[in-house]
Amino acid sequence: MSNKVKLEDARRVIAAAEKKAAEIGQPMNIAVADEGGNLVSHVRMDGAWLGSVDISIKKAYTSRAFDISTKDLAGHSQSGNQFFGIHASNDGKIMIFAGGIPLKSDGKVVGAVGVSGGSGDQDHAVAEAGAAAF
Amino acid sequence: MSNKVKLEDARRVIAAAEKKAAEIGQPMNIAVADEGGNLVSHVRMDGAWLGSVDISIKKAYTSRAFDISTKDLAGHSQSGNQFFGIHASNDGKIMIFAGGIPLKSDGKVVGAVGVSGGSGDQDHAVAEAGAAAF
Amino acid sequence: MSNKVKLEDARRVIAAAEKKAAEIGQPMNIAVADEGGNLVSHVRMDGAWLGSVDISIKKAYTSRAFDISTKDLAGHSQSGNQFFGIHASNDGKIMIFAGGIPLKSDGKVVGAVGVSGGSGDQDHAVAEAGAAAF
Amino acid sequence: MSNKVKLEDARRVIAAAEKKAAEIGQPMNIAVADEGGNLVSHVRMDGAWLGSVDISIKKAYTSRAFDISTKDLAGHSQSGNQFFGIHASNDGKIMIFAGGIPLKSDGKVVGAVGVSGGSGDQDHAVAEAGAAAF
Repeated sequence: MSNKVKLEDARRVIAAAEKKAAEIGQPMNIAVADEGGNLVSHVRMDGAWLGSVDISIKKAYTSRAFDISTKDLAGHSQSGNQFFGIHASNDGKIMIFAGGIPLKSDGKVVGAVGVSGGSGDQDHAVAEAGAAAF
Repeated sequence: MSNKVKLEDARRVIAAAEKKAAEIGQPMNIAVADEGGNLVSHVRMDGAWLGSVDISIKKAYTSRAFDISTKDLAGHSQSGNQFFGIHASNDGKIMIFAGGIPLKSDGKVVGAVGVSGGSGDQDHAVAEAGAAAF
Repeated sequence: MSNKVKLEDARRVIAAAEKKAAEIGQPMNIAVADEGGNLVSHVRMDGAWLGSVDISIKKAYTSRAFDISTKDLAGHSQSGNQFFGIHASNDGKIMIFAGGIPLKSDGKVVGAVGVSGGSGDQDHAVAEAGAAAF
Repeated sequence: MSNKVKLEDARRVIAAAEKKAAEIGQPMNIAVADEGGNLVSHVRMDGAWLGSVDISIKKAYTSRAFDISTKDLAGHSQSGNQFFGIHASNDGKIMIFAGGIPLKSDGKVVGAVGVSGGSGDQDHAVAEAGAAAF
């Protein structure tokens, strides 16, 4: 079977991310995408921002689409830098701020987790906790 | 508390829908929306259609947006009928075929479940199983 | 390696489709998508319709997204049938007329070919020739 | 005949670009547009970024649309400069970072090549190799 991110994998990632979000006291939206960039699962924790539903899903897509964390992509995408303007591509699906992290299997990116609901540092920390559980 | 569809409720609905989908042997995308029509949670079962991610989420939105099952809305939305063309509204978020069912509390619609991945009859049956668990 | 539709596979599919298109004397747009529904390659034969660039790419996406030929999907998607309105989903990426055909490996859909540039029968015949070369 | 970028021309440009990409060891998406800015052909090399499918096609469009390399356009499009905001035009089809280069015939722009999949410098170098083969 080619798909490396099954629903049970996505649930494990989400559970770890939820746990971290609860620890820091910030409800989050958490999404997991597979190798093709397509959504496997999403949860909005009670009280998390409505606008972050879309952002979490798109951060997961973005991290897989470019095999990079959105935190790192952010650096390249500011005015004056090499990828400035990339957020206008892919019909608005590219998020260029922290919270998306690739999921790797045998050193190869096979999916991604996207988190949105707090500060950039919080989103990234929660995504890291999710990715570590993969 | 105004929000009647918490994450734990969405998970209960999804679990019941997954169980039904497994029984009929058809992997599904299942989504739950809250009173505001906003996504609470989504799962894509292993092997379910990629194109149904979007459809399941939008069926849930549609059922809450008009407080009706998308199966019933379908009847009104065929060529020649009173709502024909409604699928062009809401920036493409309206699905007019079976699989979306409102979630009710005290007789009032407080959210919806959307299912996509099989025939119209299958999608509706799985959504009914989910709604019954609410 | 998980991706079952490599660039060389896509080129083989396209070459067979081009040959068929040349035989019937109708220039075509031909696109191949992989397991995730993402574009691997596209060609517009000289003189083929400009509007069919987009259609060929979306037919390939659609056939993979629902694991069905767009010719068969068309039947289900007419007014009065079970999937009427599906063309409004997936942000306008769903094509519900002939020309898209899944690519299978070991009985499993791992991608699709999409063809646009002639009549529905011509598009389907050219897509079949492409799929047969996979 | 008005169209100066035939499919065989696009294939020659793409082949040269692929060769360069292989030399620098970075898989790329490569697209060629004609005088009308419409796509003639696209390839995604094995392992190239998914998110760059869209970007390569739009870099080709952009270079033809303004008869300029996207590297040069980038300079004018940063915050504070004369074209800042141009990426919001043309329904999101404008890319303002390196990788798109016009194709010229008798000193006149008749098409463009767009490359995406690496750093800005890599994308531009691969596009140059493609354009040189035109």
